[in-house]
Amino acid sequence: MAAVKACNILITGANRGLGLETVKQLSEDSCPKRRIFATCRDPDGPKSEALRELVKKHPSVITIIRLDADDPCSIKESAKKVGSLLGNSGLNLLVNNAGIVARGTIQTSSVEDMKHTFSTNVIGPLLIIKEFLPYLQTAAKASGTPGMSCNKAAVINISTVGGSISTMPSLYDQFPVLPYCVSKAGFNMLTVLAAEELKADEIFCMALHPGWVKTELGGEKAPLEPKESVEGMLRVIGSLTEQQHGGFMDYTGNTIPW
Amino acid sequence: MAAVKACNILITGANRGLGLETVKQLSEDSCPKRRIFATCRDPDGPKSEALRELVKKHPSVITIIRLDADDPCSIKESAKKVGSLLGNSGLNLLVNNAGIVARGTIQTSSVEDMKHTFSTNVIGPLLIIKEFLPYLQTAAKASGTPGMSCNKAAVINISTVGGSISTMPSLYDQFPVLPYCVSKAGFNMLTVLAAEELKADEIFCMALHPGWVKTELGGEKAPLEPKESVEGMLRVIGSLTEQQHGGFMDYTGNTIPW
Ligand SMILES: NC(=O)c1ccc[n+]([C@@H]2O[C@H](COP(=O)([O-])OP(=O)(O)OC[C@H]3O[C@@H](n4cnc5c(N)ncnc54)[C@H](OP(=O)(O)O)[C@@H]3O)[C@@H](O)[C@H]2O)c1
Ligand SMILES: NC(=O)c1ccc[n+]([C@@H]2O[C@H](COP(=O)([O-])OP(=O)(O)OC[C@H]3O[C@@H](n4cnc5c(N)ncnc54)[C@H](OP(=O)(O)O)[C@@H]3O)[C@@H](O)[C@H]2O)c1
Repeated sequence: MAAVKACNILITGANRGLGLETVKQLSEDSCPKRRIFATCRDPDGPKSEALRELVKKHPSVITIIRLDADDPCSIKESAKKVGSLLGNSGLNLLVNNAGIVARGTIQTSSVEDMKHTFSTNVIGPLLIIKEFLPYLQTAAKASGTPGMSCNKAAVINISTVGGSISTMPSLYDQFPVLPYCVSKAGFNMLTVLAAEELKADEIFCMALHPGWVKTELGGEKAPLEPKESVEGMLRVIGSLTEQQHGGFMDYTGNTIPW
Repeated sequence: MAAVKACNILITGANRGLGLETVKQLSEDSCPKRRIFATCRDPDGPKSEALRELVKKHPSVITIIRLDADDPCSIKESAKKVGSLLGNSGLNLLVNNAGIVARGTIQTSSVEDMKHTFSTNVIGPLLIIKEFLPYLQTAAKASGTPGMSCNKAAVINISTVGGSISTMPSLYDQFPVLPYCVSKAGFNMLTVLAAEELKADEIFCMALHPGWVKTELGGEKAPLEPKESVEGMLRVIGSLTEQQHGGFMDYTGNTIPW
């Protein structure tokens, strides 16, 4: 298994589901000097208890940072905080994982759900990339090796096959989640434009689909456990090359069409 | 040239640019019993003067209706109004043309522009399809011919190659309009899901790119005149078959990848 060797890593929505499992697996592997910024919107609340427990096991590795993807101020503040903790080192890997789903069809989707999914799943990641960009640039410059890689400086956007315009029509009957799909298609566009824009700084960027996973968002019927999905995603992340820059893959390494 | 034979047609953003040119060409062709609902957000304002002049030439064909894509109430009211004017006949063709552009990159896009483009370019069309669906269904049922066609009952969404996730990275340098691209990728997802949902009612739906056209939105450098673009789009619309349902084409009839 190709391991993720990135040193300084930030993950959004890290208090439960796939985000929490990602922090867990990354803190348990044997990478020296690893530092994980596990962000969530309510670090002291009941929904972050499992994350706080995990920190107790790896206190020198994991730092919890408050970040609400719906709140531009909190994003700015989180970046300041992480910046001061990073000092002169940069951020090697930013994982935009936080996300919400909303059900609905043409006939039933509410304006509120359209706006909220777009805010959390698209505007949040846009601002997060923007605010953390200086630290990604620092990491890219500091690396000394040419080209792009996930160990040097990278943004991984956790998208979904539900954002695939060519695939989704055949899944719509089973998953009538129009506000979610529309937001994730926008997120995919954001990903390819970010990839284009960050190329000059040698910062890697792509979209990753975790599979259908048993989490609050994925629901009980999902075939995958978070452990298997995250193992797969970390294997993919660890083995990425420049060829996948601006791409869209699933947790097994298969390419997904836009 | 394959003519558009749809009888009752509604166009949004009909007071200028491509919308106005579409109303003009559709009111000048020789289709008997044609009725065009030309919608705009300020029927009495200075920006609608050209449309009002056009109505004077074709008073029995064109009816101006107020519709602001950013205002759910105005969409509901416009549907009521059009419904009462249609009486027992249905709506054959709905053209979602109204749209706005906003410039920006990862570094410069504002939250306001992200929200506004999404509201006008995505949420507006969603609500418009929803509110006018009963009249499209009436037209589909009344037609008597099986299958889908633009003369029977159809939604044409005026999208853009800027919403093509596979094409846009190569154009981003020349067109740094991230909020617009993100919204139009979401609009494309909306289009394919609407196509999926409306299939059962035999209502056709697709996305159409007008080319790069000299309008306020397209700017002075655009190579195409509205006349040529709209002639092309109407030719494409007139010749569509069920095979293009849920598809994405440009004004010359070429398929665009998602
Ligand atoms: N599970 C699947 O089958 C599946 C499939 C495809 C893609 N995905 C994607 O995978 C990602 C993670 O999903 P998951 O399955 O782990 O979902 P989950 O178990 O519901 O967890 C969602 C996470 O996002 C956080 N979040 C939501 N809104 C937020 C906001 N405004 N600010 C900060 N954090 C916020 C939640 O925090 P709170 O505890 O504060 O709510 C939570 O930590 C999502 O982007 C999702 O679209 C999942
Ligand atoms: N021109 C191009 O090169 C090009 C290329 C690709 C795609 N397109 C697409 O073609 C469509 C028409 O563009 P255009 O070039 O004709 O642009 P335009 O000349 O700027 O006209 C835009 C039209 O949309 C209307 N509109 C904007 N916001 C609205 C709202 N909230 N409610 C109702 N109407 C609203 C405007 O009305 P007001 O007068 O009230 O502002 C105007 O009638 C757009 O969807 C655009 O994305 C254009």
